[in-house]
Amino acid sequence: MYDKLIRNIKVGVIGCGYWGPKLARNFNAIPGADLHIVSDLRKDRLDHIAGLYPGVRVTRDYRELLDSGVEAVAIATPVSTHFEMAKAALDRGKHILVEKPLTDDSAQAQELVDLAQDKGRVLMAGHTFEYNPAVDFLRDFIAGGKLGQVYYINATRVNLGIFQQDINVVWDLAPHDISILLYILGMEPTNVSARGSAYVQPGIHDVAYLTLRFPGGIMADVRVSWLDPCKIRRITVVGSLKMIVYDDVEPVEKIKIYDKGVDMPPYSDTLEEFRLSYRYGDITTPAIDSAEPLSLECRHFLDCIRYDRTPRSDGAAGLRVVRILEHAQQSLLNGGEGEAISW
Amino acid sequence: MYDKLIRNIKVGVIGCGYWGPKLARNFNAIPGADLHIVSDLRKDRLDHIAGLYPGVRVTRDYRELLDSGVEAVAIATPVSTHFEMAKAALDRGKHILVEKPLTDDSAQAQELVDLAQDKGRVLMAGHTFEYNPAVDFLRDFIAGGKLGQVYYINATRVNLGIFQQDINVVWDLAPHDISILLYILGMEPTNVSARGSAYVQPGIHDVAYLTLRFPGGIMADVRVSWLDPCKIRRITVVGSLKMIVYDDVEPVEKIKIYDKGVDMPPYSDTLEEFRLSYRYGDITTPAIDSAEPLSLECRHFLDCIRYDRTPRSDGAAGLRVVRILEHAQQSLLNGGEGEAISW
Amino acid sequence: MYDKLIRNIKVGVIGCGYWGPKLARNFNAIPGADLHIVSDLRKDRLDHIAGLYPGVRVTRDYRELLDSGVEAVAIATPVSTHFEMAKAALDRGKHILVEKPLTDDSAQAQELVDLAQDKGRVLMAGHTFEYNPAVDFLRDFIAGGKLGQVYYINATRVNLGIFQQDINVVWDLAPHDISILLYILGMEPTNVSARGSAYVQPGIHDVAYLTLRFPGGIMADVRVSWLDPCKIRRITVVGSLKMIVYDDVEPVEKIKIYDKGVDMPPYSDTLEEFRLSYRYGDITTPAIDSAEPLSLECRHFLDCIRYDRTPRSDGAAGLRVVRILEHAQQSLLNGGEGEAISW
Amino acid sequence: MYDKLIRNIKVGVIGCGYWGPKLARNFNAIPGADLHIVSDLRKDRLDHIAGLYPGVRVTRDYRELLDSGVEAVAIATPVSTHFEMAKAALDRGKHILVEKPLTDDSAQAQELVDLAQDKGRVLMAGHTFEYNPAVDFLRDFIAGGKLGQVYYINATRVNLGIFQQDINVVWDLAPHDISILLYILGMEPTNVSARGSAYVQPGIHDVAYLTLRFPGGIMADVRVSWLDPCKIRRITVVGSLKMIVYDDVEPVEKIKIYDKGVDMPPYSDTLEEFRLSYRYGDITTPAIDSAEPLSLECRHFLDCIRYDRTPRSDGAAGLRVVRILEHAQQSLLNGGEGEAISW
Repeated sequence: MYDKLIRNIKVGVIGCGYWGPKLARNFNAIPGADLHIVSDLRKDRLDHIAGLYPGVRVTRDYRELLDSGVEAVAIATPVSTHFEMAKAALDRGKHILVEKPLTDDSAQAQELVDLAQDKGRVLMAGHTFEYNPAVDFLRDFIAGGKLGQVYYINATRVNLGIFQQDINVVWDLAPHDISILLYILGMEPTNVSARGSAYVQPGIHDVAYLTLRFPGGIMADVRVSWLDPCKIRRITVVGSLKMIVYDDVEPVEKIKIYDKGVDMPPYSDTLEEFRLSYRYGDITTPAIDSAEPLSLECRHFLDCIRYDRTPRSDGAAGLRVVRILEHAQQSLLNGGEGEAISW
Repeated sequence: MYDKLIRNIKVGVIGCGYWGPKLARNFNAIPGADLHIVSDLRKDRLDHIAGLYPGVRVTRDYRELLDSGVEAVAIATPVSTHFEMAKAALDRGKHILVEKPLTDDSAQAQELVDLAQDKGRVLMAGHTFEYNPAVDFLRDFIAGGKLGQVYYINATRVNLGIFQQDINVVWDLAPHDISILLYILGMEPTNVSARGSAYVQPGIHDVAYLTLRFPGGIMADVRVSWLDPCKIRRITVVGSLKMIVYDDVEPVEKIKIYDKGVDMPPYSDTLEEFRLSYRYGDITTPAIDSAEPLSLECRHFLDCIRYDRTPRSDGAAGLRVVRILEHAQQSLLNGGEGEAISW
Repeated sequence: MYDKLIRNIKVGVIGCGYWGPKLARNFNAIPGADLHIVSDLRKDRLDHIAGLYPGVRVTRDYRELLDSGVEAVAIATPVSTHFEMAKAALDRGKHILVEKPLTDDSAQAQELVDLAQDKGRVLMAGHTFEYNPAVDFLRDFIAGGKLGQVYYINATRVNLGIFQQDINVVWDLAPHDISILLYILGMEPTNVSARGSAYVQPGIHDVAYLTLRFPGGIMADVRVSWLDPCKIRRITVVGSLKMIVYDDVEPVEKIKIYDKGVDMPPYSDTLEEFRLSYRYGDITTPAIDSAEPLSLECRHFLDCIRYDRTPRSDGAAGLRVVRILEHAQQSLLNGGEGEAISW
Repeated sequence: MYDKLIRNIKVGVIGCGYWGPKLARNFNAIPGADLHIVSDLRKDRLDHIAGLYPGVRVTRDYRELLDSGVEAVAIATPVSTHFEMAKAALDRGKHILVEKPLTDDSAQAQELVDLAQDKGRVLMAGHTFEYNPAVDFLRDFIAGGKLGQVYYINATRVNLGIFQQDINVVWDLAPHDISILLYILGMEPTNVSARGSAYVQPGIHDVAYLTLRFPGGIMADVRVSWLDPCKIRRITVVGSLKMIVYDDVEPVEKIKIYDKGVDMPPYSDTLEEFRLSYRYGDITTPAIDSAEPLSLECRHFLDCIRYDRTPRSDGAAGLRVVRILEHAQQSLLNGGEGEAISW
């Protein structure tokens, strides 16, 4: 009944590659959203969409989409086109959700942030994991002090494919981990370094390692690869009181909290006396809401439009991720030297 | 019957911490070896050994062990004492097996190599994994060309504890992975960098990441930590034809060979045409001999003494690992800058 | 292009509980099918469907669906209603796909088989697993003799919920395993027994074990439960040459072929000499097509209509499963006594 | 220091097959025990033992062992010889630990119980799992009411080999599960049935399923097999409040407690209203003591001798298991018919 009372929002989706159809499916299914039109350059992709949603318009020209009367637009095209399309959409007064990374250039990301501000429109970055209930759990656990002092974080995001042609693996996969890190730690890194190699496509790194240094001595390591036999999506957060593993590939036990740690003895006069005290306690797997993160993200986008709110992953969040990616890219080209970042 | 004919070798073990008792157990059980004497500074450790092996002598003075008539000595003491003890043993004409890393200083490692050469005695580094049947399989698979061109290797060796007091986690855990890398690739790295942090004991890194660059563009990344909730011992080797995962924690499926890969199309005129071709084939888990690596290592040591052979992991191999560790340590202190290594 | 040439088939789906929406989604997405109308007694379920497929008619009266001009009907209602609805649909000349089990009574199943025969219409039982590529692999492997002589099969299908109110766990879950067994073995059991208990709903067994005896000494054991903390969908097939595990919960390694076995020595004069010879060989995980089984099933149904073919899981297959279920039910009530089945 | 004060007990071990060497290792290592003599019919097994424990006597005649001045005897020979050896040992006034099953005949087991009583000697059955900390946890959890009402238990104990020649798989493997069931439930079954087949050795079942019915409607199912590609040692206990899985193959997470369940609504006027309420809560993995169960068992045996106590797994417990096995064997031969057991 409640759903009947909320205002319906007409939505257009630009891009029908990997994410576009998922966005279309969600906007079609969410009450209060009206999937109105979808665009892509490829006719076969549009035919596919038309087959699934007979009432939805399709077009090869995204400007036609922008002029079709939609109020909100989701952009899921190759990164290099984000800026142009996002700018055009904001110029026409649309609220926009842009897939990650927001742009491939921080100056352009800043321009979008400013433009959205001027136009009074919602600009949201598609940082899906910030809408993942498991990541929310992590954030609350850390913020509530249950982990103790955060020591370090290790993130791995690897599998075979999908290779991108306009960006390397750092720009493709690391945005997820960087947005998660910023979200759960509530702070920005002061230094980033990256190392990697390009094996399949010359000049396009397909394997990379990032090291981010945060205030308070927190270190975070991110491994990303398009060239690994196994799909691994795993984040380990080690604190002084507890340790947590978040494994996104696990169907049920996504989060495991380990009551494990090690303490220094208060004093030790001699080396013989020296003993670290280990704690090997219970492991707890909290029940995590199994809602689809992308659905929660799309609902959040619609709510921000409806009630004039700032999205959790707003343009500024998107810009922060792009700035870190730029520094990582710089380090990658400099042989892994650390790049300081000022905020 | 054959066992009756081989010459019995009297063995002494110095050090009864973590590895010493394992060496003692093996030398006690292997036909053709005679566990004669064990030394340690701690009386309770010696009592423990005496309880297990009533016929074996124990002493708190390792020089007494050296003078007890043993022909071979295994040294499993803290790293900082390796050089002194190894030197004393070689000086007294003993064949020696020294736990990894060989020493904490490459000049001293070189001195041991030279001394063993002068004395005509076996100097073996305890690189256990070079005697692991799964690692042998990896080496043969790569050498036989079945993996194609090696692209990169990712190694992870983490768990909670055991913290060392005289060396950091790089010196403690990375020797395993470095010796494996050198053994399976059959070459040395030209550059190494390392990043890490010290959380529990000030100044002693307990978390670290190494990146090694080998000839031919091969990159190897090693993650080591004493501060992780899970025990992970996993090496991924990615080649142009196949990919392999070696998981030492798996009781049965230690090696998995993935017939997976990605190929560039021979040509592509337009971006639209561009298509990488992915291969998702069968996975094969070869049957691996389940013999205990340490037992194989001890038998190899005895055979080298008996038949005057050079050990697989000889002093030179031990020295190579120490040199790489020194460069990694240098990088760790330099903020992760890459260190070139000349061979 | 090819898809354009095939005849479009108008489909109706009766029932929007657990399976109905999955059938609707597939018939909406498959080229050559036209999801025309959906019925359910519950208005909220119809609203949900209407929200997802704005162009599809909905009705609370399944007879309206039958009179709506559809050519094919999928029935996914509670089992007790299958017969009435299937009969009504066949009477009106519809081709029908009926969810498993076909009916709750073998006489009625026989009547449907006869009626479909008379009317010249397709009657297909929704034995989804017969369209599962992993099950196909199993069947081919056995049929090709690669497993050797089949010894026994163990099947486990358990998790928490979903409790049914009109049938017990044997009728709810075991049809999957029984249809798989008949399909991969290509024969019928000669005897079935069952044991179980009813814990949550008085009189409705929620835990049960079935034992099926097939010709040639093959034994198959099936464990089904609505009351287990873990979701397990696992079938082990042991043969004289190889052993296979099919784990449907595994995202990637669904099938594992173990080159394991045990052989009797040709002769042994004394007990001392007696030695069974074990074979512990490689494990192979074949690449299995990841197509959705329900999609393949729906396409098969449409093809059978279009080209006048007999479905793989035809009415006779559905009847066989119902007859085995009836005997299992009889045994369940008789304290587990074996029930002979004549074919 | 404490260890110095306890009385040393001289122990002999009869049988050096699979379990004997494990017993020898433990009695050699435990303070307060003195592994004095070992016997076996096979000279090569004795040579092996003599190599490991140079100070220990070996003999091919178990009567020599009995006359060697030992106070306690552990019997780890084929089941068919247990009675003769156990009787001879008790007759000579020895305390005895007999591997499971106690005997292959309940009348003989009863005779041993009576004889031990007459002689005032310890008679202990080697039900190792009753000394397993994970099983203790299970027992305490159930006894403490945390699981609620126990509904049913599923136990699986399968792998490839080791085939026995004098007993079938029920007598070989099921004693473990039966002793666990009796221990954690604290009651005896009133009915047992069994089904199985003999594939490799004619007449010796290598695959079997047991169903045990306990008071209060508790059902327990046990699957045992020597002919399975995977090693599975898993027990699921389902209660009205919680569910527990005990997986003995897991190196760390041996016990998982699932806060899962299903409740009937207090009332429901119509079928439409009917809704079972599911509970999907946290999963907890308690830290379990990693002590070796066999070491705890051997220490318990010595303590019972030293302090004149009745063992946890005394002769009566061994007899109960033998009686259940006899009824299971009867059912196995009767085509799976349930056998009532009176206590």
